[in-house]
Amino acid sequence: MFMTKKASRFAALALTVAMLGTLTLQSAAVGVSKAKEENSKIKNVIVLIPDGMSVDDVTLARWYKSYDAVSGTVDTSVSLALDKMASGLVRTYWEKAGVTGAITDSAPAATAMATGVKSNDKYIGVTYDQKPLATVLEAAKSTGRATGLVATSNIQHATPAGYSSHYPDRSKYEILAEQQVYNDIDVVYGAGSKYLAGRADNENMINTLKLNGYEYVTTRDQMEAVTSGKVWGMFAASDMAYEMDRDETAAAQPSLAEMTDSAIRLLSQDEDGFFLMVEGSKIDWAAHANDPIGVISDVLAFDDAVSVALDYAKAHQDTIVIAMTDHGNGGLTIGNADTSSTYSSDNLIKFIAPLKKATLTGEGVEKMLNADRSNAEEVMSTYYGISDLSDDEIAAIKAAPAGSMNYVVGPMISKRAYLGWTTTGHTGEDVVLFTYLPGDERITGTIDNTDVADICAGVWGVDLEALTDELYINASAAFEAKGATVTADNSNESNPKLVVTKGSTTLIIPESKNYVYVNGSQFLFDSVTVNVKGVFYVSREVVSLIA
Amino acid sequence: MFMTKKASRFAALALTVAMLGTLTLQSAAVGVSKAKEENSKIKNVIVLIPDGMSVDDVTLARWYKSYDAVSGTVDTSVSLALDKMASGLVRTYWEKAGVTGAITDSAPAATAMATGVKSNDKYIGVTYDQKPLATVLEAAKSTGRATGLVATSNIQHATPAGYSSHYPDRSKYEILAEQQVYNDIDVVYGAGSKYLAGRADNENMINTLKLNGYEYVTTRDQMEAVTSGKVWGMFAASDMAYEMDRDETAAAQPSLAEMTDSAIRLLSQDEDGFFLMVEGSKIDWAAHANDPIGVISDVLAFDDAVSVALDYAKAHQDTIVIAMTDHGNGGLTIGNADTSSTYSSDNLIKFIAPLKKATLTGEGVEKMLNADRSNAEEVMSTYYGISDLSDDEIAAIKAAPAGSMNYVVGPMISKRAYLGWTTTGHTGEDVVLFTYLPGDERITGTIDNTDVADICAGVWGVDLEALTDELYINASAAFEAKGATVTADNSNESNPKLVVTKGSTTLIIPESKNYVYVNGSQFLFDSVTVNVKGVFYVSREVVSLIA
Repeated sequence: MFMTKKASRFAALALTVAMLGTLTLQSAAVGVSKAKEENSKIKNVIVLIPDGMSVDDVTLARWYKSYDAVSGTVDTSVSLALDKMASGLVRTYWEKAGVTGAITDSAPAATAMATGVKSNDKYIGVTYDQKPLATVLEAAKSTGRATGLVATSNIQHATPAGYSSHYPDRSKYEILAEQQVYNDIDVVYGAGSKYLAGRADNENMINTLKLNGYEYVTTRDQMEAVTSGKVWGMFAASDMAYEMDRDETAAAQPSLAEMTDSAIRLLSQDEDGFFLMVEGSKIDWAAHANDPIGVISDVLAFDDAVSVALDYAKAHQDTIVIAMTDHGNGGLTIGNADTSSTYSSDNLIKFIAPLKKATLTGEGVEKMLNADRSNAEEVMSTYYGISDLSDDEIAAIKAAPAGSMNYVVGPMISKRAYLGWTTTGHTGEDVVLFTYLPGDERITGTIDNTDVADICAGVWGVDLEALTDELYINASAAFEAKGATVTADNSNESNPKLVVTKGSTTLIIPESKNYVYVNGSQFLFDSVTVNVKGVFYVSREVVSLIA
Repeated sequence: MFMTKKASRFAALALTVAMLGTLTLQSAAVGVSKAKEENSKIKNVIVLIPDGMSVDDVTLARWYKSYDAVSGTVDTSVSLALDKMASGLVRTYWEKAGVTGAITDSAPAATAMATGVKSNDKYIGVTYDQKPLATVLEAAKSTGRATGLVATSNIQHATPAGYSSHYPDRSKYEILAEQQVYNDIDVVYGAGSKYLAGRADNENMINTLKLNGYEYVTTRDQMEAVTSGKVWGMFAASDMAYEMDRDETAAAQPSLAEMTDSAIRLLSQDEDGFFLMVEGSKIDWAAHANDPIGVISDVLAFDDAVSVALDYAKAHQDTIVIAMTDHGNGGLTIGNADTSSTYSSDNLIKFIAPLKKATLTGEGVEKMLNADRSNAEEVMSTYYGISDLSDDEIAAIKAAPAGSMNYVVGPMISKRAYLGWTTTGHTGEDVVLFTYLPGDERITGTIDNTDVADICAGVWGVDLEALTDELYINASAAFEAKGATVTADNSNESNPKLVVTKGSTTLIIPESKNYVYVNGSQFLFDSVTVNVKGVFYVSREVVSLIA
């Protein structure tokens, strides 16, 4: 176990006071002692990330939920779990040396939220100069807490990866997967089995998980049957279905809320507390495609997961719940160029009724089309609520590349629902901060995405910078300073090793593993060796193996 | 003076508790008594409305302020006064019988924020069935507090009108102006002198103001010279300049912050406390035109006004400051279709540098063009930072109708700054709530725009519904119930009157005035008679003039 230094504990707490400073009438006066008292009650942190969700998406999803297509009536009292949690804004810009970026991608955003440090485009859990950074998940582990990751994308995707692995290239899913597998996360639910088996390095991570005591599950039934211990659920090879497209039969994929519920049930058995990150991954994918149905589907699914987390937090009063997207995406607006002169008298139903007719997302629609797409009109009418396709639109559907039908049909339904979009990329606006703290408190103001990491780690008294110094030491430099000889063993190209010798001791350090060999015997550790393009980073405990 | 009933006082307080419920650890437990204790400290309410400001506008304005074009560097520590106040979201939809509207215009939005009641498109301070509603400004007056209105548009424009007048047509500026003049508001700053003099009814409202004890001022110098008493400042015939276009010489138009500062200095002399509404009116106009320079100019000017209000509130700890827009507008995004595949690596400077070159808004640019617009290229280069106009763009500038140049050049600079827009109309998203309460408290969660009115009135213990019952009684019905004869005197078409006779008493009730004649003698009241298309509404005090 890695304990952070006492001094940095207090530094972390002081930061928390600053962050929580607006929450209570007395907070400024009582300072650190108040915060310590408050924090002592908080055991658990649940961070929920609706990837790529703009505030307009929230409003649209709420209206969708409020409108009853059968009666044609709107119930304005319908609300979302998120609604009462809205409490501020978050700045999302990314940074590398000398450069500030207005619009972040998920990799530097996840790195910021997970490590408290802004980084470069594509970089996962490393600084802009490619040094690994301790994450809040690793901080939770360092205090003996249980940890969990839930996503609907592959679990190696940027956001969950940013909490659990370290590499300056978000696309290296097999490297990220291996680090995750050896990072001893208690509960992992999502997709991405294709990066666990059938890998370039010929290692079978599914077998590894089983050897390491994980229950490995692939269906909702199997997930629900797990009542304790470590579990790794992979419910699809690459990504799970949108909630609206999901097969709800018992054996099939669980919903995001069901995964969240299961994760909390398992993690909360740890008396030390837990950290859980839940991502509604595909809101982002739908926003890229400008498919409002996909957005609505998964904003509502995400909100159900928030509801599960909130219920737990309200019942136990020892848990912080933070929900925030990593960035905007698509520039959705209710209203577009066609409503420029009519908006003020337009009935809500004009916007919502066309959306309510769809029963599948753009991705789901694609699966219903036959090989030559000759059933385009029938499918679009039945599942997407559009029965007035123009010849051009039919031609566009037939011509759409495989896997990108949502990019073609999303704009078609958007036009009919008078929704605007500005881009198929991300956008740079401040995003909404949603929080719940024990005692119905909130975190308010405009914070930075890096503050989220400091809030999480601060709750547990962990200084992330100090933890980085414990977990990620440049191995060559450290061992050579001790007079050891360090060489690279790249004989197995997909499994490079560092070989360290001093006197009669030989250390073999494989990349992306939580173990090393000392004179042939395996030693296990709580953290994973990170190999960034030939530069190995190991924990202080590993360094101490050489005298 | 109109006092509300004791019973409704407590109803109003209970509502306030619900609204403030998330603010303190103890609030749920101590309930009403806590809220009363808190409220007793609060004398003043300042509501600041950045009309048509989307959250993206805030982010863009902050970046604009952060970027130093001379050194080419970005200071990410630059913040806005608004930043620490961000604390939740506001729903903005409008409603009439059986119809919900997704996208509000300023009239029903102002009515909601000022009266706590949603209404129909175009309706100012009246229900969807055209009955006047008491406003929070009138609530403040009813408790003896001083009141003020500040705007950069004409003061009869929808937002300030919604706080101070009542008519189901926002375009009837002369009617709205007359009600405002007779509503005994202590401080009024903005534009719109053309609706005070040279009116269809031949009344000169400027003379009326002077007769009623107002200092009537038309320049910044004159405004600054006023140190006490009632003041009415009209700094332009129809609307004030955007901050960026403003002539800053001493005698000219004051800034929004200067007007706010002067208003607070005067209003705070009332020992009972005050209500002040400040509108950054032309953010909305720039957003309609898709002119980011106008948006940035006036978001920053608005933020300076917020800063003035916040400084007062922090120093005195007896004032609530609420800032919220009435609706989104334009669908601005940082990032557009041209950044769909580059956004994640785009430098912030790519977006901001083109904007920083402009020294006038699109409206300011128009004033620099000569009659035949032959100097289009020179003006666009010098004042708008665009030196690569295409032939089509030059032609478009030459063809632009007078008064709408910002609609033509706004999109030109937006394209060069990679900004997206979806519409020249309003948009329907939840907007950001910014709050500051004594003790550095906040109002959190997702509230409704009507809640803002109830929060304001609740602070003072006024029940707006009860106040409406005091101030706006159907005159004909009330007098006829007393056995009086009621006839309409439309002999002067632009000044209709109601004539009420019973026994030897004849009451003459002119529209839009705070007085009536009883057998030829003028009687003054604290509220204004409202004539909605022939239906007169008067206060209970006026009704009591007939036995």
